[in-house]
Amino acid sequence: MFEAAKLGRSISKETYKDQIPDLRTELLEVQRRLREAKIPVVVIISGVEGAGKGEVVNRLGEWLDTRGVQTFAFWDETDEERERPRYWRFWRTLPPRGEISILFGSWYMAPLHYRMTGRCSDAELDGELSRITDFERMLTEDGALFIKFWFHLPKDVQKKRLKKLKRSDRSRWKMLPQKGEFSTHYHRFERVAEHMIRETDIGIAPWYMIEATDERYRDLTVGRTLLEAMKARLDAPKSAATAASYTPSLPSDPNAQMTVLDHVDLSQSLARDIYKSELKRLQGELNKLVWKAYQKKRSCVLVFEGADAGGKGGAIRRLVQAIDSRLYRTIPIAAPTDEEKDHHYLWRFWRHIPRAGRLTVYDRSWYGRVLVERVENFATADEWKRAYSEINEFEQQLVESGIIVLKFWLHISEDEQLARFKAREETPYKQHKITDEDWRNREKWGDYKLAVNEMVLRTSTDYAPWTLIPGNDKPFARIEVLKTVHDTLKAALKDDDVRHLSPCKRVSKRS
Amino acid sequence: MFEAAKLGRSISKETYKDQIPDLRTELLEVQRRLREAKIPVVVIISGVEGAGKGEVVNRLGEWLDTRGVQTFAFWDETDEERERPRYWRFWRTLPPRGEISILFGSWYMAPLHYRMTGRCSDAELDGELSRITDFERMLTEDGALFIKFWFHLPKDVQKKRLKKLKRSDRSRWKMLPQKGEFSTHYHRFERVAEHMIRETDIGIAPWYMIEATDERYRDLTVGRTLLEAMKARLDAPKSAATAASYTPSLPSDPNAQMTVLDHVDLSQSLARDIYKSELKRLQGELNKLVWKAYQKKRSCVLVFEGADAGGKGGAIRRLVQAIDSRLYRTIPIAAPTDEEKDHHYLWRFWRHIPRAGRLTVYDRSWYGRVLVERVENFATADEWKRAYSEINEFEQQLVESGIIVLKFWLHISEDEQLARFKAREETPYKQHKITDEDWRNREKWGDYKLAVNEMVLRTSTDYAPWTLIPGNDKPFARIEVLKTVHDTLKAALKDDDVRHLSPCKRVSKRS
Repeated sequence: MFEAAKLGRSISKETYKDQIPDLRTELLEVQRRLREAKIPVVVIISGVEGAGKGEVVNRLGEWLDTRGVQTFAFWDETDEERERPRYWRFWRTLPPRGEISILFGSWYMAPLHYRMTGRCSDAELDGELSRITDFERMLTEDGALFIKFWFHLPKDVQKKRLKKLKRSDRSRWKMLPQKGEFSTHYHRFERVAEHMIRETDIGIAPWYMIEATDERYRDLTVGRTLLEAMKARLDAPKSAATAASYTPSLPSDPNAQMTVLDHVDLSQSLARDIYKSELKRLQGELNKLVWKAYQKKRSCVLVFEGADAGGKGGAIRRLVQAIDSRLYRTIPIAAPTDEEKDHHYLWRFWRHIPRAGRLTVYDRSWYGRVLVERVENFATADEWKRAYSEINEFEQQLVESGIIVLKFWLHISEDEQLARFKAREETPYKQHKITDEDWRNREKWGDYKLAVNEMVLRTSTDYAPWTLIPGNDKPFARIEVLKTVHDTLKAALKDDDVRHLSPCKRVSKRS
Repeated sequence: MFEAAKLGRSISKETYKDQIPDLRTELLEVQRRLREAKIPVVVIISGVEGAGKGEVVNRLGEWLDTRGVQTFAFWDETDEERERPRYWRFWRTLPPRGEISILFGSWYMAPLHYRMTGRCSDAELDGELSRITDFERMLTEDGALFIKFWFHLPKDVQKKRLKKLKRSDRSRWKMLPQKGEFSTHYHRFERVAEHMIRETDIGIAPWYMIEATDERYRDLTVGRTLLEAMKARLDAPKSAATAASYTPSLPSDPNAQMTVLDHVDLSQSLARDIYKSELKRLQGELNKLVWKAYQKKRSCVLVFEGADAGGKGGAIRRLVQAIDSRLYRTIPIAAPTDEEKDHHYLWRFWRHIPRAGRLTVYDRSWYGRVLVERVENFATADEWKRAYSEINEFEQQLVESGIIVLKFWLHISEDEQLARFKAREETPYKQHKITDEDWRNREKWGDYKLAVNEMVLRTSTDYAPWTLIPGNDKPFARIEVLKTVHDTLKAALKDDDVRHLSPCKRVSKRS
């Protein structure tokens, strides 16, 4: 694969000088069009040591309008990053729509490094590469343009280049620690890199191999490739992404369909005195468990969804009452801010992933994508259909990093909802909780039921299961929620062993 | 001062139960009104150990609508926080307009802790307290409401309370490390705290002393105080904040006035060959210096302001060409996002303060407040007038934390600007740089000149000086900028000693 990057191609000074002005004009023009079209662009700069990746990026800084371009290197993780799922730091660097992020190494460095040093197996590497393609596909389907560069050098050129870098006083600063670590294993590095590139060279996010022997050839080729890729994206009709993995196996007539919700036994209830004593007992236990989780650096993500007036608020309140306010955060999900709208819809939830040992309660969540956004047509069918697997992948990453994920659907009957709406209208300090929208939503009960059913079926996983809570009796519902959180935490914290994680799962690497 | 908090006041269970429902209704109502009025509320929870601060916050979580309330404890600083000026972590916790932040301890804990342990002097403590009052005044003038609670206990009650906490299995989790550290020095603690409270008990951000012996009295009093303070803020006409420290000593007729800009010698220029060799030399030197700064963990903040077409972009490009793209970030300042608009105007700049050893280039900056916002009347006279001291204080904090701050004004003549505007209109890849707005701004040349003059006079400090760059000759201007950055960095990095900082300047403390 790398043969094409060893042909010794070069460009004369004259040709280079000749071509640059037009290239720059066109780059600026196309950058402006991308901004107007609100297309986010991710440029990945990867390759062998000594290829001049830093120089290339500096060159791009010269050619592009740096307003709207950010560069990120992934040196040592900060502790805020280390205490969250691995991809959290990458989400932080994703460009808003219309802007460009240039990433050194990016998510490719860790798996490459780990495979090179034998700290993960071929199978683990492949697992990680398939995660990467999922990640890039997801962002591409959301409108992003990926341009991935791999810079390559023949062995002898690399050797000379690194020697010169080491010698030269002027450029010794370029020798970051660990630099040249892989150059001593040229062929092995080439083999692993080739495998990685082949596995992640997907049509929507292809790799561009750049021969880096001649600097002018290298820079000009990068500039042109960038230009062509950006132009092509602008000219292409909206990517023909389809929710390929989506299997529409469910009947679409809500009335004809028996859903999981119909199996929820809404008749269950709890006597007032049992409720009171159980509440006290469970809150006390839970309080201790959350502190224990803090000490063990295990985080929790709790998701609350439910019918309007289903009792989410009350259940959350009973839950967080038990928890020291310094250990949890409630994130109410309302309309996204404009910064949030300028990113993939999961970005706003990644923002609030708790640090190690903390707990985040999402009062409504990413499931809005397959609930309200589906029912109200805020999301296209393609968008909400592919959301199921995006969400599963997201939650899997949380769980892999040690986070405990629980999801609650608070279910009530149509009659019960009506009664509660009316009660809200009559209680002064609850009136703000009931709006015209609630009444309108109520008319779509059947659609919501269908959406909830499909959501539960497609996203209740062994690592992040849904718990359906019968909500007609509030005391019963609240105790059920508390019990579930309590039991799950208790079981998770019992396991004193360090969880076995693939080394790919938690790594950091200079790029 | 604390006598009033030792009267042994208590409330019966009946009275408590009686009063809670109305209080809750009113709190929710007033919280909603504050949200609509877009008033940000900061609640500070401070006081002696064992007073039940955590319980109070949990109670508030019960009473308030937790959507729109965030709680922050300032435990150990993360390294992302440690590598930035001390107040960076506090800025992160400030509520957006219409929301409430509950802060444990907040900026009060570090100075109290340091004075208690003898790590700073009375004078240093007072310096820090005056910084705090400036900070709170600034935010108050921007519309924020501060409600500061100090919880107090008589000595014997505290002793009993801590003993009980230690003994009880149920509440051992409350005993955070270091808890009770100060309780052994009850009187000394009381003396320092009293001094601190007195110094920071300013009219716009008063302290409320709460006797914490009886839990019902404590919680009810907190609830009522909160309610009254929020109501009062809603009923008050926009705070009569005035830019008291502002001295309008400058004549306001732009034509009659000799400004600092008139002293800039615009005739200076540089021959092409000298420019080329100097550029190469300085860029090479600077490259090394920035890596050295990285190793020494010294950050730089570079501010670029200037007339339209003054050459900011070109100067910045020549500068950052010299710097490895992993070490710097360019922040172009355009219209604020809605998240930014929901905070004090300095918030968006605090966001981008570089981590230790990095460099941030602000392409336009917080000086917009006293330039475009002043001239175009986007800011009220009060707002831009008080901005001078706010900005000086901000920059002082950066410098204190070890950041090197440099500010450039790129100055050109009116004729030169006209020539450049015309050239831009004729060069294809520069056309996007010239808009109708630029022509409109040009008509206000005199107003801008006046604003620039006052800006330089009021904000050129020894720790963060302005450098006025004669910009008519681009090569000359670019070399001047490079030279200034180079010389400043060189001088700053020569000083190998660890800078002497008051211990108050870089501290972290559990709250």
